[in-house]
Amino acid sequence: MMSKPKVLFIGDLDESLPQFHQFKENYEPLVIGYDAYDTEALKSKNIQFFNTPSLGADHVADLVLWHVLESFRRFSSFQKETQNLPHTVKVRSDLQSHGYDQKHGKLGTEQTQWERESYPFGHILGGQVIEGPSGRNVGLVGFGNIGQKIGKRLNALGMKISYHTRNELSSDDVDKLGFGVQFYKKIDDLVSQNDVVIICCPGNKSTLNLLNKDILDKAKPNSKFINVGRGFIIDEDHLITKLEKGEIGFIGLDVFTGEPVINPRLLNRPDVSLTPHIGSSTKDVFDNTAIFSLQNIVDSLQGKEGRSRIV
Amino acid sequence: MMSKPKVLFIGDLDESLPQFHQFKENYEPLVIGYDAYDTEALKSKNIQFFNTPSLGADHVADLVLWHVLESFRRFSSFQKETQNLPHTVKVRSDLQSHGYDQKHGKLGTEQTQWERESYPFGHILGGQVIEGPSGRNVGLVGFGNIGQKIGKRLNALGMKISYHTRNELSSDDVDKLGFGVQFYKKIDDLVSQNDVVIICCPGNKSTLNLLNKDILDKAKPNSKFINVGRGFIIDEDHLITKLEKGEIGFIGLDVFTGEPVINPRLLNRPDVSLTPHIGSSTKDVFDNTAIFSLQNIVDSLQGKEGRSRIV
Repeated sequence: MMSKPKVLFIGDLDESLPQFHQFKENYEPLVIGYDAYDTEALKSKNIQFFNTPSLGADHVADLVLWHVLESFRRFSSFQKETQNLPHTVKVRSDLQSHGYDQKHGKLGTEQTQWERESYPFGHILGGQVIEGPSGRNVGLVGFGNIGQKIGKRLNALGMKISYHTRNELSSDDVDKLGFGVQFYKKIDDLVSQNDVVIICCPGNKSTLNLLNKDILDKAKPNSKFINVGRGFIIDEDHLITKLEKGEIGFIGLDVFTGEPVINPRLLNRPDVSLTPHIGSSTKDVFDNTAIFSLQNIVDSLQGKEGRSRIV
Repeated sequence: MMSKPKVLFIGDLDESLPQFHQFKENYEPLVIGYDAYDTEALKSKNIQFFNTPSLGADHVADLVLWHVLESFRRFSSFQKETQNLPHTVKVRSDLQSHGYDQKHGKLGTEQTQWERESYPFGHILGGQVIEGPSGRNVGLVGFGNIGQKIGKRLNALGMKISYHTRNELSSDDVDKLGFGVQFYKKIDDLVSQNDVVIICCPGNKSTLNLLNKDILDKAKPNSKFINVGRGFIIDEDHLITKLEKGEIGFIGLDVFTGEPVINPRLLNRPDVSLTPHIGSSTKDVFDNTAIFSLQNIVDSLQGKEGRSRIV
């Protein structure tokens, strides 16, 4: 009978990221990734060492889709009002007949006579006219596995997809997507020409403050910004100021500059959607990760190479 | 100079629907459709008469997609808690460490030690484990223009699409969809075999109480029901009872049996999503409807046939 090899289950180390030390004060950081492990030592002792890639791309893309739907249709705001006033027409009338305090994000200013008195179809919410995503332009900052899955979903909504990455996709890779895309070499152009900008690139030193003040100031009026990458990729404070001034139309965030703490200026606004960093937080992702790892153990015991092997 | 023809702008009459008279007590009903108009008289006076079809299918499908995302990922519940407690990890921990009062839909019962103490990734909410839609089965009751647009979106999420209608689609029509579908001749089978059931058929006498008690009792455990057709197509009261008993997992509604009034048992539950009948409530739909009608006027004045002509 063969002796059983020792196996390590491992993940990612975020120590290079700005919020790591702040986070570490209060929490035991999760170790995902393998930078912290001495691969030479493992090799010298003949210990096999495997990684598990992120298997949550579909789930992150689903979360982005929710934020995009919120940014156009404001379903959560309608739902919140429906919880308080369980009457379809009165809800729509109430939301239509009140304006919007841009600075504080509150419904409550009186509207014009036309807005107060016309039939409430539900196409006006706090002085904002509701539009659908179909036919609008969306620009993805980052176009890896997650970005491409986001693109597939937004293409199904009838949106026009564009992206910015360091290197343009080959025409073969574009053909495999199943939908058309436009490439922006300059992130400035992506920001200035799209109705929705989605940050879905990795957070690291090269993407730190990638969407800085100067670039954000090129945003289209009423444009919408969604971030599921890392909080420090965008100048969040400046973005919120632009929202308060009415220079952009919506912010949707799953990640935050001061994470785990969320800037209170983002709270309770109908033009902000918030999720607490749960992009890939599903049982499926854990199940699939476990299955991937267990398969590597089986493969290793059977003398096969396994997938995503490091040592 | 030619004399200008008279033109009527018209819509739908809902008088045959059960909630019409209840609604009429409080509201001036909208007239959409043309049953109420004397087409013979119009013809005898040589008045051209045009309809405008519903141009909101994309927008209704977007709303369904939001309810589907809610039914799996519970983003609104995470958002609501984030508004109260602006801290990503504390929100997830709070939602994970509390159980769920099934009958009243409230978070608040203590959980097991494991659930309280394991790291809060955000994959547990009120005793429910969060799963994604990818790979799950969805059955559409109704598969016209709206149903097909819903199917396209849910296919992009990786869901498996099936449908029930009176007549099966031809293989040519299936090929045009761009995604695979399964047909259920019996609605009982659709309900018993799908993780999500979506009602997206018209409301009329033939669909009144189509999803009755007997059929609902065949639903899969933890299955999710979404209705954007009309409230009276499903036995809403029985559906809510099943949710309270834990026999199904989620209800998402844009239309209601007692519309415009909403049953209070549906309110403030994390396993219910509500929108106040706003499926096609966007500026785009009004704009497109106006453009369609105006084009008919132009065509008529130029002696062309026009689209969707009745007389």
